[in-house]
Amino acid sequence: MKNILVLGAGLSSSSLIRYLLQQAGQFDWTIRVTDQNIELSKEKINGCDKGVALNFDVTNPDARRAEISKADIVISMLPARFHTEIAKDCIDLKTHLITPSYADKEMLALNQDAKNSGVLLMNEIGVDPGIDHMSAMNIIDKIKENNGKIDGFKSFCGGLIAPQYDDNPWNYKFTWNPRNVVLAGSGTAASFIQQGRYKYIPYYQVFKRTDTINIDGYGEFIGYPNRNSLMYRSIYGLENTPTIYRGTLRRGNFCQAWNIFVELGMTDDNYYMTLPTNTSPRLFLNAFLPYHTSLSIEEKFKQFLRKERIHLYPLFEWIGLFENENNLISDKQTPAQILQQLLEKKWRLGKNDKDMIVMMHEIEYEENKTKHKIVSSMVYIGENQTYTAMSNTVGLPVGICAKLVLQQKINDIGVCLPIQKHIYRPILKELEQYDIQFIEKMY
Amino acid sequence: MKNILVLGAGLSSSSLIRYLLQQAGQFDWTIRVTDQNIELSKEKINGCDKGVALNFDVTNPDARRAEISKADIVISMLPARFHTEIAKDCIDLKTHLITPSYADKEMLALNQDAKNSGVLLMNEIGVDPGIDHMSAMNIIDKIKENNGKIDGFKSFCGGLIAPQYDDNPWNYKFTWNPRNVVLAGSGTAASFIQQGRYKYIPYYQVFKRTDTINIDGYGEFIGYPNRNSLMYRSIYGLENTPTIYRGTLRRGNFCQAWNIFVELGMTDDNYYMTLPTNTSPRLFLNAFLPYHTSLSIEEKFKQFLRKERIHLYPLFEWIGLFENENNLISDKQTPAQILQQLLEKKWRLGKNDKDMIVMMHEIEYEENKTKHKIVSSMVYIGENQTYTAMSNTVGLPVGICAKLVLQQKINDIGVCLPIQKHIYRPILKELEQYDIQFIEKMY
Repeated sequence: MKNILVLGAGLSSSSLIRYLLQQAGQFDWTIRVTDQNIELSKEKINGCDKGVALNFDVTNPDARRAEISKADIVISMLPARFHTEIAKDCIDLKTHLITPSYADKEMLALNQDAKNSGVLLMNEIGVDPGIDHMSAMNIIDKIKENNGKIDGFKSFCGGLIAPQYDDNPWNYKFTWNPRNVVLAGSGTAASFIQQGRYKYIPYYQVFKRTDTINIDGYGEFIGYPNRNSLMYRSIYGLENTPTIYRGTLRRGNFCQAWNIFVELGMTDDNYYMTLPTNTSPRLFLNAFLPYHTSLSIEEKFKQFLRKERIHLYPLFEWIGLFENENNLISDKQTPAQILQQLLEKKWRLGKNDKDMIVMMHEIEYEENKTKHKIVSSMVYIGENQTYTAMSNTVGLPVGICAKLVLQQKINDIGVCLPIQKHIYRPILKELEQYDIQFIEKMY
Repeated sequence: MKNILVLGAGLSSSSLIRYLLQQAGQFDWTIRVTDQNIELSKEKINGCDKGVALNFDVTNPDARRAEISKADIVISMLPARFHTEIAKDCIDLKTHLITPSYADKEMLALNQDAKNSGVLLMNEIGVDPGIDHMSAMNIIDKIKENNGKIDGFKSFCGGLIAPQYDDNPWNYKFTWNPRNVVLAGSGTAASFIQQGRYKYIPYYQVFKRTDTINIDGYGEFIGYPNRNSLMYRSIYGLENTPTIYRGTLRRGNFCQAWNIFVELGMTDDNYYMTLPTNTSPRLFLNAFLPYHTSLSIEEKFKQFLRKERIHLYPLFEWIGLFENENNLISDKQTPAQILQQLLEKKWRLGKNDKDMIVMMHEIEYEENKTKHKIVSSMVYIGENQTYTAMSNTVGLPVGICAKLVLQQKINDIGVCLPIQKHIYRPILKELEQYDIQFIEKMY
């Protein structure tokens, strides 16, 4: 019998836990699930006799170590900031660890200790990061095997509302953590390389400098550049590739309109505003517009938009930016926090709404002195609001990886990303059974 | 005999040291001046027998304390980051301290210790901060004495090139620390209050949201908002005043054009660029413009400007932004550092150029049920490139304050700003002898 310890039973763990429980009988696994809220653990286990619901405090080292010592593998779905401490315990107690989070500096620094201890610390094995790495490397490695030379790598991913439920002028609803959406791109310039030229885009230009892509059957998507595309040169072994770009996908006028929030200063998360304790969207907006003795707030906002962006005005009307009701809490709130309150009222998922994950890689290469382009795309729609596209595409690769480790089909040790053939191939293959699959087109 | 210890003999100390040496005979002072570079100390003392040139290391506590213990008063013209340690020594050794720097949190925290020790820690007594405080409080206190109610306080200050030497299309040259000019306004939103409305302006809008002011005989100036005008409510006792705004003055098209640098992302100081080790302004610019297969850099830049800002194009041509010479060091340089290199080539003062300090307060108030407006302005032109307007307006108030403390005409203890009548009145009065004077106009 093998013990799998799952840390965190929130929305992102639903699909993972279902997957593990479905396989638990066949492989004789016990799935021990912990969350601060034991009801969440119980809900996710859903009465299955292979599951055990716990609610020990993961920040308590003794409680945590006691559970880790019983486990054959630990899967952490907790926020990334918890992972260094958990990884240290895993090294100490010789237990493998899998997380879908980015491997930060602290995690990378544990590589040698993990190797000395014979422990795997697998990171970045959700959807983005995760499926993006695996599906990209699957193409890159094939091209390299055929002695092809890669001239351009562009990759896009987006978590969106599925087309059938896309019924507002922003073509957007929150399908994941709203705070991350509000702060997307902030804090640093986006950087990438295009035809050998390094390009830097400040935050307040990021949503203006977009690319349009097309996916058969789904139409147009708009991609804005991610923060740091340059680091993927070394991760993907593309040091000499003159174009490397990673972007996030949105639909319709979203990026153009979002840029207005950024330009106004409404996405700033660095200071608390001084406003009445309960404030209206209208007052919130006016704090970012110039004072004028006679112009209305609507008129001032239209001036701010300028003629060429006036077509965006209805989006802001729809989002309630001019409303007079004091329905926003502004005490000790940053602009970004107040904006988030406004957006959460309008971008809420309807009861039957489904989300969608879209991913696309566009790779240009030269093989036998001929130029080629391969476009590989994946569109995946969620089952419902528990087994969302986001939850499935994050949870399934994590679960499959855990299985492969327990079956000793993955025997790596140290800090790993899923960028090696023997890791990504079986995972991508099994994901296809769950309809998470890429369609490749050659040009 | 009294000992005055001056820390720092750089550009900003010239006028201070001259003032102190001029008065040293009359008051039996010895002026001990230290700088890392003893040549600077010697140069500033200029052979005067009342001066002693030193070059001990101010970061060495023993050396520093040995000198402070000999002094009756310490004047620090060093960068603000040194001041907490120096202030602690002064408290310990019961020596008064004067600095023109902002009183930061660490400095403010020393208030009680300084009082217990009977020591004065006078801060913000240069020009801005300094003369701005004194001249503003001079008006505010008079209005309050007459039971007037202040409805609006706007204050502007700028360090500029004197009109006679203003011979480039930017109407600007570096008359002070270039790095501070390049980073002006960055890092946080500007905040102020106008007619009771709190206003917040993100960095990338600051140079767009300008005010135009007029000063008799000098014409138009353009003011952009300073970071935090709100804190002056408590400092100046204007808690109930519905308009409080502080701005920095520039001339002509400067602000509009500077905003282009900001929008491009060229003033970012948070990351190192990847560019050839020696790069050209042209390559630097292109890193911030979109890739295009056929448009030239000039054409792309014109698109970025848009039609309504195309009149600014000649300013960028003049500054050399399209030049092809590899004359910028870009190894481990932030965009702001590279931009500074470019600007320093063009905004250098000519041999005979003089600088200018401009300050203006515009105060609206109600007295005896009548509304009034008082505009108080000061324009001061430097003597030459040693005794600049900046050096004189910073150094003279510091020097005068030191004299008043030694004469026991200022007997305050604790952390102080020059906002009290018995402090600012004699200083403003003596400044008039040096032609640093305000002209008041009533409306």
